Amino acid sequence: MSPKITGELLRLLRQTMRNCKYFSEPIHAYIVPSGDAHQSEYIAPCDCRREYICGFNGSAGTAIITEQHAAMWTDGRYFLQASQQMDSNWTLMKMGLKETPSQEDWLISVLPENSKVGVDPWIIAADQWKNMSKALTSAGHSLVAVPDNLIDAVWTDRPERPSTQLRTLGLEYTGISWQDKITKLRAKMTERKISWFVATALDEIAWLFNLRGADINYNPVFFAYAIVGMNSIRLFVDLKRLSDPVVRDHLQLDSPSLPELSIQTFPYESVYTELQAICAALGPRDKVWICDKASCALTQAIPKVHRSPIPYTPLCLAKAVKNVTEIKGMKMAHIKDAVALCELFAWLEKEVFLFPFSFSQQADFVGLSFPTISSVGPNGAIIHYRPLPETNRTLTVNEVYLIDSGAQYIDGTTDVTRTMHFGTPSAFEKECFTYVLKGHIAVSAAIFPNGTKGHLLDSFARAALWESGLDYLHGTGHGVGCFLNVHEGPCGISYKTFADEPLEPGMIVSDEPGYYEDGSFGIRIENVVLVVPAKPKYNYRNRGSLTFEPLTLVPIQVKMMNTELLTQKEKDWVNEYHRRCREVVGAELERQGRMEALQWLIRETQPIM
Amino acid sequence: MSPKITGELLRLLRQTMRNCKYFSEPIHAYIVPSGDAHQSEYIAPCDCRREYICGFNGSAGTAIITEQHAAMWTDGRYFLQASQQMDSNWTLMKMGLKETPSQEDWLISVLPENSKVGVDPWIIAADQWKNMSKALTSAGHSLVAVPDNLIDAVWTDRPERPSTQLRTLGLEYTGISWQDKITKLRAKMTERKISWFVATALDEIAWLFNLRGADINYNPVFFAYAIVGMNSIRLFVDLKRLSDPVVRDHLQLDSPSLPELSIQTFPYESVYTELQAICAALGPRDKVWICDKASCALTQAIPKVHRSPIPYTPLCLAKAVKNVTEIKGMKMAHIKDAVALCELFAWLEKEVFLFPFSFSQQADFVGLSFPTISSVGPNGAIIHYRPLPETNRTLTVNEVYLIDSGAQYIDGTTDVTRTMHFGTPSAFEKECFTYVLKGHIAVSAAIFPNGTKGHLLDSFARAALWESGLDYLHGTGHGVGCFLNVHEGPCGISYKTFADEPLEPGMIVSDEPGYYEDGSFGIRIENVVLVVPAKPKYNYRNRGSLTFEPLTLVPIQVKMMNTELLTQKEKDWVNEYHRRCREVVGAELERQGRMEALQWLIRETQPIM
Repeated sequence: MSPKITGELLRLLRQTMRNCKYFSEPIHAYIVPSGDAHQSEYIAPCDCRREYICGFNGSAGTAIITEQHAAMWTDGRYFLQASQQMDSNWTLMKMGLKETPSQEDWLISVLPENSKVGVDPWIIAADQWKNMSKALTSAGHSLVAVPDNLIDAVWTDRPERPSTQLRTLGLEYTGISWQDKITKLRAKMTERKISWFVATALDEIAWLFNLRGADINYNPVFFAYAIVGMNSIRLFVDLKRLSDPVVRDHLQLDSPSLPELSIQTFPYESVYTELQAICAALGPRDKVWICDKASCALTQAIPKVHRSPIPYTPLCLAKAVKNVTEIKGMKMAHIKDAVALCELFAWLEKEVFLFPFSFSQQADFVGLSFPTISSVGPNGAIIHYRPLPETNRTLTVNEVYLIDSGAQYIDGTTDVTRTMHFGTPSAFEKECFTYVLKGHIAVSAAIFPNGTKGHLLDSFARAALWESGLDYLHGTGHGVGCFLNVHEGPCGISYKTFADEPLEPGMIVSDEPGYYEDGSFGIRIENVVLVVPAKPKYNYRNRGSLTFEPLTLVPIQVKMMNTELLTQKEKDWVNEYHRRCREVVGAELERQGRMEALQWLIRETQPIM
Repeated sequence: MSPKITGELLRLLRQTMRNCKYFSEPIHAYIVPSGDAHQSEYIAPCDCRREYICGFNGSAGTAIITEQHAAMWTDGRYFLQASQQMDSNWTLMKMGLKETPSQEDWLISVLPENSKVGVDPWIIAADQWKNMSKALTSAGHSLVAVPDNLIDAVWTDRPERPSTQLRTLGLEYTGISWQDKITKLRAKMTERKISWFVATALDEIAWLFNLRGADINYNPVFFAYAIVGMNSIRLFVDLKRLSDPVVRDHLQLDSPSLPELSIQTFPYESVYTELQAICAALGPRDKVWICDKASCALTQAIPKVHRSPIPYTPLCLAKAVKNVTEIKGMKMAHIKDAVALCELFAWLEKEVFLFPFSFSQQADFVGLSFPTISSVGPNGAIIHYRPLPETNRTLTVNEVYLIDSGAQYIDGTTDVTRTMHFGTPSAFEKECFTYVLKGHIAVSAAIFPNGTKGHLLDSFARAALWESGLDYLHGTGHGVGCFLNVHEGPCGISYKTFADEPLEPGMIVSDEPGYYEDGSFGIRIENVVLVVPAKPKYNYRNRGSLTFEPLTLVPIQVKMMNTELLTQKEKDWVNEYHRRCREVVGAELERQGRMEALQWLIRETQPIM
């Protein structure tokens, strides 16, 4: 990885910041968030503005450019990667370290009095705008919305916005029709006296209409907005995509069953004016729901007296709790995934080089759910490493191998990480692996009361590492969509406590503690787990208890464990988990006639002790 | 406990709510918070307005009275007690249960359109006012400040505000002079460009001036405000208290060493007008620090452009990190406390009746730090039970005995809970006790990185209970002051995540998981613990690690343990803890010639297994 050369680019950008063609006064600082207008985590190439200006292409980061400085904030997953991808024009701001200033504090410390700080109101979330604006105003500066994006102004070869073919999903995959989802949404709106709901998150829109696209790599979504009223459904999308008769039929565009389930379609770009028109016709008590993470531009299109911002929408919560059909699909998807991985691992072990394996041999495969992370030795310590030609290392028997892969199947989304060694791991590597495993088990086997939020479980994953003075600088788990985004809200397992809804049966999250030794190796053990009811001995105040059921069924390498550090309970967990891997995935390998992988599976799932 | 009869009182209060003498329009709902004008947790009798109106005398609770309804919100510690102290005019709102509405939601659901909700602006915190006002306004109602307190208007025999003698503390107890504390505070103010600081919390004012009072039971504080500028110190206190020459000399009232360390004194009541006068003279960029938990009245005396609200003040944080002198004092205080308790327990066991024991035989005893909770059997399940004549039960050999006591010594504050049985505990009682002990040890022995906030440790205390479907409805620990309030911020160990500063060496918190079986028994094991550096094997990113050192040194009853449920590590912890109790407290018992207690201590600290 060599850094992107940004001197000339920054010169051009600073020129536009001073140019009153874009804003009535010169801009003293310009904020470049990483998101798109939908606050997507993964974004289309046309929206990779932060990467374009600074070179860093991780999933999270914010760049700020002033006349004198250029700084980029990112979190612990990306410290190494960002430092390698940015040139010396840039200062890396390591979030989560005590000495790192917040964006607000930094701006206040470097700006001359009375400065204007510009940002594109379409790609900053309303809640971020509010916080930033408040902090700047209290220090005598002001945050201003610059209508034209200044990165786009200097980005000569910016790609077009994608518009891929839409795929319709029937009841056999979704378990519930889009019509019923609309009806349930309207019931929630009635309950809270809400007249309109504005959907801006791409995965929520895909889920609501039982449609999928491929506009963003790894995320089966499509660019759209939706506005739902009690008698109206408006869908904003590139209208060319609606000429497909299968899609027209699925959405009943030509013959709606009921007037209130008739969908009006509009061009993607007209959402702002259409929302303004809706708001102009509101009664004095009408309220409009919009997520506080929606763009500042769209949020401010709703007059304040009518605006009812929510930390996450009813769709976000409904989508997080999977129904019976979705859970069945997720289980099937994980079995297919395990088959592909067992085959890969069996080969790797024999060949110790990168076997061009493929999930795509499995039924219902649609694509990857994120770029496969397959790293050896020191590259494993770069938390979200992707192999690039310059840094690619040959797999050897001397180094720790980490693979984090996920796939999209029509029936579900997977995300699994395994860490292994094809030779003899060092005592330190085994020790760290075992602490990570203890943390993984502590979360996976935890029993906790109904109503518990995921952040209360985060420390369970760290206790064994902490006891030895170790830690990892990322959360322990994220929500996982069903043939949707591999990262979704509103639940997760993290030391961060915001926007964390209580866990409930049917929710699906990842359990992925790790340990990363800079310049040496990386370890992560990740399963996707389903929240299920637990039945402990007692039932305090009739609250009921929950625990996790692993959906991922891929052996965890025993060779990497220092079994002396495991308690009997932990060994029992490993043995029971491996028994299930053998039983479920073994049957499928046998059915598919993959005998070499089956032999490998049987050997890797021998009970320990 | 029979409930307070409140029918006539409520009738009178509702009359004042309609009476335009108190507010220009009728009030449709009146909020009665539990605090005083300083947001103290424990309050003086004259401030017990919520108890006066509803009968419930726990430390936390808010009453709201409308024309039709009267409701009182409190948390899990007090559900049983509140239901026994309130008559049928009142609805108990159990906070923390899913089905319980928030105060805002409840008000919105019961009030007619366009209602006025009144509150005394001196006893509602500014942040609570803001949240409540926002919620009510968005539903078409309004929150209004009623200058005269309406409870006081119907409270004919309201006691006077106390004004006890002030006690000065020398360097041998405080480790740092008030002059140096002022200088450090001013340095923080300069760093953050703050011109004035308004201190409203009584323990912060007592700490700042190295003074103590006895205005509030168990809390060695006195009613006062302080306003500190770069060249000015203003103290607002009943001026009669300053006639004592020792106090005058301590504060250098008659001969200040330096002009900027000269204290101007004012009557307690004049804080509002004096603050207004200060604010009227501010320059355009001057900022005033005030805690966002300060009263709404005082906060709003500062014009918004000058107001810089903070979640906790620099005094709060400085006070939480104890210096060497304070830590030495706290250790001494805990040894004295342990001596008194060993003596009590030795006697109790022999006599099985309430021995009139006394901490006051110990040197430097000042008073209790809270009312001793000494409860038997089912009363132990009332989390903050205090013996009253009607409910007092004789101690028998058939029931679990819980004692939670704390004392104020000149050198420190203590808080300890032990649960014991003088006969044969049931298997279930032992099982629950052992889960609570496992939780206590998990927190006490935890090693965690520097910078960790206490809420990340809360689940460690619950894991063993959760695994069996049990839990307790209170936090795991609170900050403890040094000859100050037994409950103090800004750190603690709770599932609640607000106002939680990272733990650092020198902070002192309690570790007190419990289990309460309604109508049957209560269990709690509480030690006061000091945050100290830990030295684990590794040191990830040079962050350093922390752990806890127990200051409380009182044996934990082995008879109550089911040692089969303990791991070897947990047994080792118990044995090492008991070894220290025997070593430190045993020496002191011997020195004081308390041989019976010494024999008891030696027997109770025999190693297990």
